[in-house]
Amino acid sequence: MKLALDTSQTSGSIALADADKLLYSAYFDLRITHSETLMPAIDAAIKTCGASPKEISELYVCLGPGSFTGLRIGLATAKGMAYGLDLPVYGFDALQLTAFPCILSNKKILAVIDARMKQVYAALYNPDLSVLQAPRVLDPQELLDWDLSGTVITGSAVALVRPLLDKANLASSYAPKYFRIPKAEVLFALPALLPPQVYRGEKLFDLEPLYLRESTAQIKHQQNKV
Amino acid sequence: MKLALDTSQTSGSIALADADKLLYSAYFDLRITHSETLMPAIDAAIKTCGASPKEISELYVCLGPGSFTGLRIGLATAKGMAYGLDLPVYGFDALQLTAFPCILSNKKILAVIDARMKQVYAALYNPDLSVLQAPRVLDPQELLDWDLSGTVITGSAVALVRPLLDKANLASSYAPKYFRIPKAEVLFALPALLPPQVYRGEKLFDLEPLYLRESTAQIKHQQNKV
Repeated sequence: MKLALDTSQTSGSIALADADKLLYSAYFDLRITHSETLMPAIDAAIKTCGASPKEISELYVCLGPGSFTGLRIGLATAKGMAYGLDLPVYGFDALQLTAFPCILSNKKILAVIDARMKQVYAALYNPDLSVLQAPRVLDPQELLDWDLSGTVITGSAVALVRPLLDKANLASSYAPKYFRIPKAEVLFALPALLPPQVYRGEKLFDLEPLYLRESTAQIKHQQNKV
Repeated sequence: MKLALDTSQTSGSIALADADKLLYSAYFDLRITHSETLMPAIDAAIKTCGASPKEISELYVCLGPGSFTGLRIGLATAKGMAYGLDLPVYGFDALQLTAFPCILSNKKILAVIDARMKQVYAALYNPDLSVLQAPRVLDPQELLDWDLSGTVITGSAVALVRPLLDKANLASSYAPKYFRIPKAEVLFALPALLPPQVYRGEKLFDLEPLYLRESTAQIKHQQNKV
């Protein structure tokens, strides 16, 4: 049985699958921290499926970019389970997870995730999720340098970039809200398109979030040193 | 707060939203009946959101076509809650629910749901979900009379119709598995495209599943009378 986790944003989600069949999935966007919701959600999922944690054979986890604390909780949980049960962990990019529900559009896909401080994490993909613009953190106006003609724009930061992009008249379109919600079960579908990073054994200790920038705390620490 | 239910297939799903924001969703495809899973799932959803049943103000429900017993359980639950709390119920077609995740393809969408006895429930839609072929129950080979060129084919019965359609060389494509999974939260997105049927008060008693055909029990009963 495979378990997928995504805690890279304010929302969280988990999914359980047996080979190719989705057994269970849950999504929650509540005003409580992932540290309170994640383990109970995993436990409820496994119990609902009438299974035990020992039946998990593979872990799929979203590595970010996204919320610093959310990513740390998700990865620590995945590492803990993988270490205890000696499981492989498959790691994926949050922007590819975000882009996936739009692949049927057969258009370029711009994925944007809120990075706080008026910035966004952004990446531009072909419909097969091959990379046109690699993930980075940027001010929304920097997106105007990208070729976004005939692009579908999706992700949790659509509301943040839309006023600016609308003004620029880019002939792009926005994914309806349903398609912008990040879901852990996408992680089961991504390996057909993308080779995941695989972590196991000693390599498990190298499993790190994709931060793309330093945390506010680190930036402040650097500034204080100058 | 809005609650959505889908028990039209062997899988079931529920979702909770506050205005435009999805708060919680759960999907389960287990070998136990909806009569055992549905109420506990609704209760867990409401409790996870820190809410009480009295905060539900609208119900969204999938009317079928699909599993006879599943639909009866889903509709009875919706009717019970709506009667108790005097809520409006918005009813939707299972084939439009199935087609929705493919709307970004900008192609015609063929939705197929397993109807057992080697038959399928099927309907053909434009990308805006307007109807090209109305929902009906049919033998898979009857689909060859429909114009399926440039169509994306989706739903739980893809595996059932694919061998036949592949042979006929229809220049159509199949939605990846991720897009074929029916989700109750789609019901929150459908009203933007489709006017739902609305039930409330006395009209609530008229809330009926969309069966499209008689149940096996009814067919047998008819045959015994002849």
